[in-house]
Amino acid sequence: MQIVRAAAAMQRLARQWQRRGWRVGFVPTMGCLHEGHLSLVREARRRVGRAGLVVLSIYVNPTQFGPNEDLSRYPRDLAHDLKLCREAGTDVVFTPSDAEMYPGNDVTANEPVSDDARTAFSTYIVEERLSQCMEGAVRPNHFRGVTTVVAKLFHLVLPEMAVFGAKDWQQVAIVKRMTRDLNFPVKIIVAPTVRAPNGLALSSRNQYLDPAQRTQAVILHRVIQRARAAVRRKSVPAAWLKAELTKFIAAAPLARLDYVEVFDPETLKPVSTAKRGTQLALAAFFDTTRLIDNGRL
Amino acid sequence: MQIVRAAAAMQRLARQWQRRGWRVGFVPTMGCLHEGHLSLVREARRRVGRAGLVVLSIYVNPTQFGPNEDLSRYPRDLAHDLKLCREAGTDVVFTPSDAEMYPGNDVTANEPVSDDARTAFSTYIVEERLSQCMEGAVRPNHFRGVTTVVAKLFHLVLPEMAVFGAKDWQQVAIVKRMTRDLNFPVKIIVAPTVRAPNGLALSSRNQYLDPAQRTQAVILHRVIQRARAAVRRKSVPAAWLKAELTKFIAAAPLARLDYVEVFDPETLKPVSTAKRGTQLALAAFFDTTRLIDNGRL
Repeated sequence: MQIVRAAAAMQRLARQWQRRGWRVGFVPTMGCLHEGHLSLVREARRRVGRAGLVVLSIYVNPTQFGPNEDLSRYPRDLAHDLKLCREAGTDVVFTPSDAEMYPGNDVTANEPVSDDARTAFSTYIVEERLSQCMEGAVRPNHFRGVTTVVAKLFHLVLPEMAVFGAKDWQQVAIVKRMTRDLNFPVKIIVAPTVRAPNGLALSSRNQYLDPAQRTQAVILHRVIQRARAAVRRKSVPAAWLKAELTKFIAAAPLARLDYVEVFDPETLKPVSTAKRGTQLALAAFFDTTRLIDNGRL
Repeated sequence: MQIVRAAAAMQRLARQWQRRGWRVGFVPTMGCLHEGHLSLVREARRRVGRAGLVVLSIYVNPTQFGPNEDLSRYPRDLAHDLKLCREAGTDVVFTPSDAEMYPGNDVTANEPVSDDARTAFSTYIVEERLSQCMEGAVRPNHFRGVTTVVAKLFHLVLPEMAVFGAKDWQQVAIVKRMTRDLNFPVKIIVAPTVRAPNGLALSSRNQYLDPAQRTQAVILHRVIQRARAAVRRKSVPAAWLKAELTKFIAAAPLARLDYVEVFDPETLKPVSTAKRGTQLALAAFFDTTRLIDNGRL
């Protein structure tokens, strides 16, 4: 397994592969890898074949964090990540630095280093519709950071396909939209959310939870199951369903609901009637830890 | 010479070339071609060699026009353009439609077609610093349209290099910045402005000028020459120079100055002292026709 740190070296390598006609599957991550990420590596491998290459990037992208979010304490463990990558059959791990990715920028403040205002990083990709609701509504500029870094990584790794986890459903919809709108020559693959035996969706942020919180965090999955049961035999008004689920989540007193939304899975447009095939997404805080989950009803 | 209209067909072709390892040079245009564009085709040819491919796109990009600008009357003459392309040795001309480039959008209003709000085109590239001054200050969203369409065309044509004319100096600086910031695997080449014998920079918009305006339009070039003379032996205060040039342009009463600016050629940062090596740019109206020009002092 090859480890690449410099952006220029990554792109040089990618162009070599391109000239040789090698198939490349790409898994962008923020590290702190778990079984969810590894399932994406296996999906990429399955699609590019044994002769193809699977590239995984590890980069905690500062531009997708808000000023009061968990950028500084986001879990990092490169040695462990590399071990897991090796075991999962990754060919190349790309781990750039902030200075490589955002030249001339103070990435903690997302502002140019004082003297450098005119040469600092200054180009962003903005998706204007799908990113207005849910995560976009409560995390301003989050998706601007996501689309920008994904575009950069696509240009550095030059994959024919990229695999994303369904757990970040809105992110997947926005990355797909960006890929279509800007004509990226990349196919977006969505792999299912991997869950713990109790139903809790795997997430790097689960590490923040204490044992009591971890037990109650399963409420996110229970909400999805409850909503599935509610629409199994008939469609129901979305407002009624959301009110029911908001009451239901009170069963986990450590959870503080941020939002619960029912919407069209592709357009993310809120529906007035929830039924089978409607998508549900929710976010909840456990103290300062914020978890998200979603599912098809 | 091959003519390609569908975006998907263009990208399919580009990927074939990529697999075969063919070198591709790209010249994006809005059509209504003149000797300036053809000089870009020749520069691309020189660089990719006889075995390489030169692709020229013709697309009047609606998203870079403001609501009160000349989108509807922008000159179009595809038959003549194709003739010139053939003569200049272009291999492929890509002429997409608005429906291909901005699916689901009413491009004249740059808004989604009513029922389509959630599936319409919604992703833009925004350069936030270099695009604030000069053209960006007087043409809101102009450069957002430029960067967005250039990114789309890069992804459809997959060139190793793209050639732009120096006449749109700020555009070149912003396209270079975007290419660096988003790590496009494309080299940006800048070719010198081509001028009529009297010094007037060639532009598709020169067609709008009546004979009297055309004669006086040479004032833009004269302003640059005058500024060059002013700094030949000593540096001068920028404010003084701009005031002098503003007076000087009154010699052409049909011209209405929009702006004249002196700045660093790379960062576009205004200078307080103009000297050799400073860049000058200006824009002027002749009735409703707006012309730009620039030069190194």
